[in-house]
Amino acid sequence: MTRDSQRCDIGFIGLGVMGKNLTLNLADHGYRIACFDLDQSKVDAIQEQDAKERGDAPPRVVGCRSYTELLGKLEAPHLIILSVPAGEPVDHVCNHLIDAGIGADDIVVDTGNSLWTDSVEREQRYKGKFIFFSTAVSGGEVGARFGASLMPSGDPYAWTRIEPVLHAIAAKVDPKTGKPLESFEPGKPVTEGEPCATYIGPVGAGHYVKMVHNGIEYADMQLICEAYHVMRSGLGMTPVEVARIFRQWDKGVLNSYLMGISAEVLEKVDDETGQPLVDVIMDKAGQKGTGLWTAVSALQVGSPAQTIAQAVFARSISSLKDERVRAKAMLPGMETPKVDDKQRDKAIQALHDALYCSKICVYAQGFQLMELASQEHGWELDFAEIAKIWRAGCIIRAVFLQSITQAYEQNDELANLLLDPFFASQIQEFQGNWRRAVADATLMGIPCSAMSSALNYYDSYRCDVLPASLLQGQRDYFGAHTFERVDKPEGRKFHIEWSQPGQPQVAIKR
Amino acid sequence: MTRDSQRCDIGFIGLGVMGKNLTLNLADHGYRIACFDLDQSKVDAIQEQDAKERGDAPPRVVGCRSYTELLGKLEAPHLIILSVPAGEPVDHVCNHLIDAGIGADDIVVDTGNSLWTDSVEREQRYKGKFIFFSTAVSGGEVGARFGASLMPSGDPYAWTRIEPVLHAIAAKVDPKTGKPLESFEPGKPVTEGEPCATYIGPVGAGHYVKMVHNGIEYADMQLICEAYHVMRSGLGMTPVEVARIFRQWDKGVLNSYLMGISAEVLEKVDDETGQPLVDVIMDKAGQKGTGLWTAVSALQVGSPAQTIAQAVFARSISSLKDERVRAKAMLPGMETPKVDDKQRDKAIQALHDALYCSKICVYAQGFQLMELASQEHGWELDFAEIAKIWRAGCIIRAVFLQSITQAYEQNDELANLLLDPFFASQIQEFQGNWRRAVADATLMGIPCSAMSSALNYYDSYRCDVLPASLLQGQRDYFGAHTFERVDKPEGRKFHIEWSQPGQPQVAIKR
Repeated sequence: MTRDSQRCDIGFIGLGVMGKNLTLNLADHGYRIACFDLDQSKVDAIQEQDAKERGDAPPRVVGCRSYTELLGKLEAPHLIILSVPAGEPVDHVCNHLIDAGIGADDIVVDTGNSLWTDSVEREQRYKGKFIFFSTAVSGGEVGARFGASLMPSGDPYAWTRIEPVLHAIAAKVDPKTGKPLESFEPGKPVTEGEPCATYIGPVGAGHYVKMVHNGIEYADMQLICEAYHVMRSGLGMTPVEVARIFRQWDKGVLNSYLMGISAEVLEKVDDETGQPLVDVIMDKAGQKGTGLWTAVSALQVGSPAQTIAQAVFARSISSLKDERVRAKAMLPGMETPKVDDKQRDKAIQALHDALYCSKICVYAQGFQLMELASQEHGWELDFAEIAKIWRAGCIIRAVFLQSITQAYEQNDELANLLLDPFFASQIQEFQGNWRRAVADATLMGIPCSAMSSALNYYDSYRCDVLPASLLQGQRDYFGAHTFERVDKPEGRKFHIEWSQPGQPQVAIKR
Repeated sequence: MTRDSQRCDIGFIGLGVMGKNLTLNLADHGYRIACFDLDQSKVDAIQEQDAKERGDAPPRVVGCRSYTELLGKLEAPHLIILSVPAGEPVDHVCNHLIDAGIGADDIVVDTGNSLWTDSVEREQRYKGKFIFFSTAVSGGEVGARFGASLMPSGDPYAWTRIEPVLHAIAAKVDPKTGKPLESFEPGKPVTEGEPCATYIGPVGAGHYVKMVHNGIEYADMQLICEAYHVMRSGLGMTPVEVARIFRQWDKGVLNSYLMGISAEVLEKVDDETGQPLVDVIMDKAGQKGTGLWTAVSALQVGSPAQTIAQAVFARSISSLKDERVRAKAMLPGMETPKVDDKQRDKAIQALHDALYCSKICVYAQGFQLMELASQEHGWELDFAEIAKIWRAGCIIRAVFLQSITQAYEQNDELANLLLDPFFASQIQEFQGNWRRAVADATLMGIPCSAMSSALNYYDSYRCDVLPASLLQGQRDYFGAHTFERVDKPEGRKFHIEWSQPGQPQVAIKR
């Protein structure tokens, strides 16, 4: 391996949209980066972009033509960041780095959308060859470029080396207000404030937390869509009228990145037809899998993240466009009642409150899932820290995350967000409208799967005696599955010999 | 291998509750069976039971002390049935059979609760050594003894050999009425009627169909529990009063095995306390995993089986008993309004209709899931046949399955049960009450997750334009995920350059 005189601080592999922007973000913070991509034109592109942005200053980005050249540009121990597609490409790059002579003390940071269990396997697989570290990134292209929310996890020694780098490129928050501190000007990054990057735990934990972030994102988006649907179909409002309401909501407790962009989408006019763009977009939702992974994990861990799962199913059903159009003709619903202005305003307020309460339940479900996963894997997740790094940079960023941060700062043993005094009182105040909004949609025949799933979560969670007692009776009847008794110690099993053909009815203990 | 003079027709391995009863069922149908279990006392027990039941007739069951002895009792090609716990024990037995000299033409039928993908792997693994065939069994102990619902799948040649055996021990149905023909007297089996056993498809397909059966069962049970909950907590009825309503419902369209046993559970008085047993049973629902597998498969296949998933989550939340008791104190709901007799009768009728419509949606979801899985795996499932074999023997048996059978017999291309004219008209007739029941529970604060999830499924499925258009706009905004247009050919992707920092708003095509 030959050494170059122009030494770099960090190696970066994979210069797609995310990789390129993360590299420029690093450069803005004074790092000198050796870059490589299998597609040479991407290496050229980032060098051109750097030349444009840096002006007369010396190059901040050094293009490389091979893994070996890239390693040769770095000081040992090497720090290399990957931004390549999840799955096989990650291992492809890792194996090439081994061939190129990477050492046992070198660190490779995977920032892709990897499945968390893959990260766990990789740390094991590459042990002794290099240190594999995983850092999940949320924030899309803009976050990558000007400040993302970062969820790093892996070897704690490696973290001491990585920490200043990730703190630099993370989104920043005003520690007093919890609001983002933003700059979108190349070369002028935000250097003050609390960085949205915190050490999450052992390898894989960061990608797990990011997965749950995305599950929450699915539900957040679905809830906004349902509020839009009721205003549109139930209250007869235009997309622009709904956008106006969303802009108002964005100034209060419902302030969030997703609320803001939803307004913008609804305001958009299609150039080609002159119609609202939302009426031109095909109503079939795609998905990349992270919401699905969250729902599957919730089922497996036994955590009732039902609104997140519901958001995934809502996307599935949307994809059946042809069937839905046929079904519409065969399956009439109810007449939508006419509403006057006063009724409409009341209905809009009810929807606002329904969205707010549902959102609290979605986050309660997400944090509950992380808590159960944390217990199962021994991660000891710090939920105040997780809420903090979601306050800026990521897709679900919202003023709301500041309240969650405070809830966990006040009580780090909190079993469920719903039991936090602030959130409990908020739901107490708004539940009447929440129920009214869900009941109205139910009667009108407008689907509101996520909102009603959230309400059912709330009502189930606060129910001291559920009809699961009857269900356990059924299970014991047909399958001799036994049951526990409310008046006997936990774990003691009882069984009834039910009146099955030829059998006497006698209660026996197991 | 030595040959015995007393030849048997079938070998049976695993003599637990299910295995013992299946063996006695076979014996009642004139088969002579060689039996083996690692636990010799189980071999002794079935021989004693046979002696008791057969009277002066010669032994129908021959106990063996080894795999070798069992093979020695059988005519080649051997037919061996397993009833051992799912997972590793199945392979344990298979490997012992190989060591004992089983041949390539011999057939091994696994009747355990195996995960369907395990069956697929096993057929491959044992190819050339013997023919691995899988038959899922529903019906519990009583079904195994006097007639079960059987879902066989695997090598079609093997099926020709197995068919008469499974037809014999299957539950039987009156082909005219679709109702079960039952006998629960040892030695006097039902020999007439349509058997509830049909060839499902390639190996694994039978266990997949059984898995979905269990997913439907979870939802069926949860729906009954919710109806009970509303009557109990919302309408102030006693368990015995609810049981009386269930007995009435069991005479009409809601007739089902589960409805009948629910009434019996609610009527049961606890010997120890004199209280209704249902009030003594701990309200924490257990699960064995098949409902969870169904929900996970639905997420992975992209089939909106949301009410089945919801039933799984309802069990998860029930297990959080301590949290729920604490939450009850902190999270008040709404006042339950007083109802007079007339209002109560109306509410009960609404619940009846809600349960019926929800049930239609649950079966629609289950069959839709099987359809998508069938397409994915090339199984070509026959849904009329599947509905037929669920009419008796299994846990979800109900008069309702006859209507499903007819729907698929009339149209084997039916995309969804909701599009069948009969079911469409039923929901049309009862949807007003369905909506009313769900809205009332919502306003009262009584959880009805499954019922409202089913209603939202219905309203989503019959909705020609879903707000997924806004969702696709959001996704394109933050992740450049692109969208299709309603006025352009399917598959063509469009993208907007949204007003992100430093970027102009221009529509471009991808």
